[in-house]
Amino acid sequence: MISKKMEGLVKGSSVIRAMFEEGRQMAEKYGEENVFDFSLGNPNVPAPADVNSAIIDIVKNTDSVRLHGYMSNIGHDGVRSAVADSLNRRFGTSYDKSNIVMTVGAAGGLNVVFRAVLNPGDEVIAFAPYFGEYNNYVANYDGKMVIITPDTEMFQPNLAEFERKITDKTACVIVNSPNNPTGVIYSKDTLDRLGEILEKKQKEYNRTIYLVTDEPYRELAYDGAVVPWVPDSYRNTIVGYSYSKSLSLPGERIGYLAVPSSVDGFAELMSALGVATRILGFVNAPSLMQFVIEKCVDCVTDVSFYERNRNTLYEGLTKFGFSCMKPEGAFYLFLKSPIDDEKEFVSMAKKYNILMVPGSTFMCPGYVRIAYCVSYETVKGSLPGFEKLAGELGLI
Amino acid sequence: MISKKMEGLVKGSSVIRAMFEEGRQMAEKYGEENVFDFSLGNPNVPAPADVNSAIIDIVKNTDSVRLHGYMSNIGHDGVRSAVADSLNRRFGTSYDKSNIVMTVGAAGGLNVVFRAVLNPGDEVIAFAPYFGEYNNYVANYDGKMVIITPDTEMFQPNLAEFERKITDKTACVIVNSPNNPTGVIYSKDTLDRLGEILEKKQKEYNRTIYLVTDEPYRELAYDGAVVPWVPDSYRNTIVGYSYSKSLSLPGERIGYLAVPSSVDGFAELMSALGVATRILGFVNAPSLMQFVIEKCVDCVTDVSFYERNRNTLYEGLTKFGFSCMKPEGAFYLFLKSPIDDEKEFVSMAKKYNILMVPGSTFMCPGYVRIAYCVSYETVKGSLPGFEKLAGELGLI
Repeated sequence: MISKKMEGLVKGSSVIRAMFEEGRQMAEKYGEENVFDFSLGNPNVPAPADVNSAIIDIVKNTDSVRLHGYMSNIGHDGVRSAVADSLNRRFGTSYDKSNIVMTVGAAGGLNVVFRAVLNPGDEVIAFAPYFGEYNNYVANYDGKMVIITPDTEMFQPNLAEFERKITDKTACVIVNSPNNPTGVIYSKDTLDRLGEILEKKQKEYNRTIYLVTDEPYRELAYDGAVVPWVPDSYRNTIVGYSYSKSLSLPGERIGYLAVPSSVDGFAELMSALGVATRILGFVNAPSLMQFVIEKCVDCVTDVSFYERNRNTLYEGLTKFGFSCMKPEGAFYLFLKSPIDDEKEFVSMAKKYNILMVPGSTFMCPGYVRIAYCVSYETVKGSLPGFEKLAGELGLI
Repeated sequence: MISKKMEGLVKGSSVIRAMFEEGRQMAEKYGEENVFDFSLGNPNVPAPADVNSAIIDIVKNTDSVRLHGYMSNIGHDGVRSAVADSLNRRFGTSYDKSNIVMTVGAAGGLNVVFRAVLNPGDEVIAFAPYFGEYNNYVANYDGKMVIITPDTEMFQPNLAEFERKITDKTACVIVNSPNNPTGVIYSKDTLDRLGEILEKKQKEYNRTIYLVTDEPYRELAYDGAVVPWVPDSYRNTIVGYSYSKSLSLPGERIGYLAVPSSVDGFAELMSALGVATRILGFVNAPSLMQFVIEKCVDCVTDVSFYERNRNTLYEGLTKFGFSCMKPEGAFYLFLKSPIDDEKEFVSMAKKYNILMVPGSTFMCPGYVRIAYCVSYETVKGSLPGFEKLAGELGLI
């Protein structure tokens, strides 16, 4: 009844759904406040107040036909100009509205890019650990995912292996920094070297390779860390952004693609992104939210909320003898499993009502992801359980 | 730089874009009020006032994290229950939330269905004339479109040819009533016979064939016409709905799929629809709009606005000697081109600043589509031009 491709996906997704259901059942059994669900990247910080007042203001003062109507598939001129201007102020670029496509979040944007550029059998390279959904986005268009094994020292991209795995079928490379699931920010030096390798390989194979940078966590950086602007490191870069985390609007599905005019085949690519937006059924990013972003393009979320969670969690876990990188950004902590099979570790944690996601979901077994976009009470409340878990595992 | 599949699509779309640009240039040259642009299905009726007050009320009174956050990929429980209850009241069904998937408009919903059920090479049957985008939606998943030639007498589906063209590769059939571009409502008798043919062929080929009914125009019916509820005519029906036209929210991208529990493989299909929603990058239908639909599920648009346009246009055009069916619903009129080449007719009309879409876009050359979801002034203002055009063609 459903397609063959879908059968495996439905089976796989039922594992995640089972975990979600388990969390709900645990909350019912033990009380919401006694369950520490670190499994989902759903921000616990409300959207900035300016966002909600902008919605009300826009609805009151905009002609309804214009407010809710169709526009160009790539979005309204106003918001696209506002995004371009904001990027220009922040990154010294010289974009205008012709460089911006409004998208249904970053997930929508990535699908639009792959629909626009991938031929069946084309290869897309990603650096483990990475968000497992990339595999599905690439498979949607019959692309082939090529995985670079993780550097579990620093969790920067493994560039030696990367260089070896680029072929004449490589169409795209994905990077995601600050990274889900590690919280690592890719350094400017790493990105520059990555760009140099790509330039060299483009010449060698006489083809265009687009670097797709997935940036929903751009604004979430701690300790004054700077998130490098990837197009500065490589000309053929497409930036995919989402307001899901930076403005806590994940359910509203609003983001953009920024495409520098200097990329190969700029005009053709922009046309293809517009067509892909239309034919995949997005048609356009939600209209009201486009007006909201135009007004709130420089609004910021409460990064200190996540930073406090990070600090408390990192200090607690390392004190108990667990091992992990200190996250530099995003709202994830990637913990080394004290036992070989991290799925077993995830199971053990459930005894203490702690829910985490196995690293194999991110192509990096032996680790678990803790999403600390939860309330501070959840972070604090989980620590006694983590301490008992550490004791059980002989870490303390 | 872009995929081979995309190259043709970009070329094709540039024709439509050229028309759009031409309209804008004409408006600049002659003044907006002197250009009669009947090319787009963008409602000129504002959203019901209740919709905008619901938005404000919801934003003021809903917790922001819940309002804008992620939910299940198939949508919030509340709106899905509200949609199910509304359908039960109107059509005597017995749905609950488990039968409803919230979607990014009908275009998003159709993509989700095809992603969920099509294997490469599977056939999808559609009855000409039909919305040309179906071809792209099916091609996205390597399905093969099978076109039933139009019955240009009554514009009901040609069921004899339909029966002949069903094969063991037929996975889906699409119907769209009230129809874009003809404005015809498929009769209960036609749908019942269509359902009987499908039941017979399912047995013959021992496979499931889903009937996908695309219903954005369901609420737009004139002269008291009843739009039959398609699942009453065939068990394996999936209903795709959009609030784009019924609540004038095309830019907001909100609709649903309704799947009766009695369809083959119901549980598996619902899981697949959820997974497809996620992996295509929709993730979920826009959250705020889901809350709005929950409140406004029984709101109605001003059908009398479109009915007045229809009456004035139909009376004018037939008086001038043009030939067409009187639209029973939707907001399109499908005019027979007085000359063989309808593209030439479209060109001639431009001299009078009248913009229409050639029927070949809808797999039905020899006709043109007039979208009368424009202001009444545009309809009235176009008539002298149509009269001159009729004179030029010797119709009067």
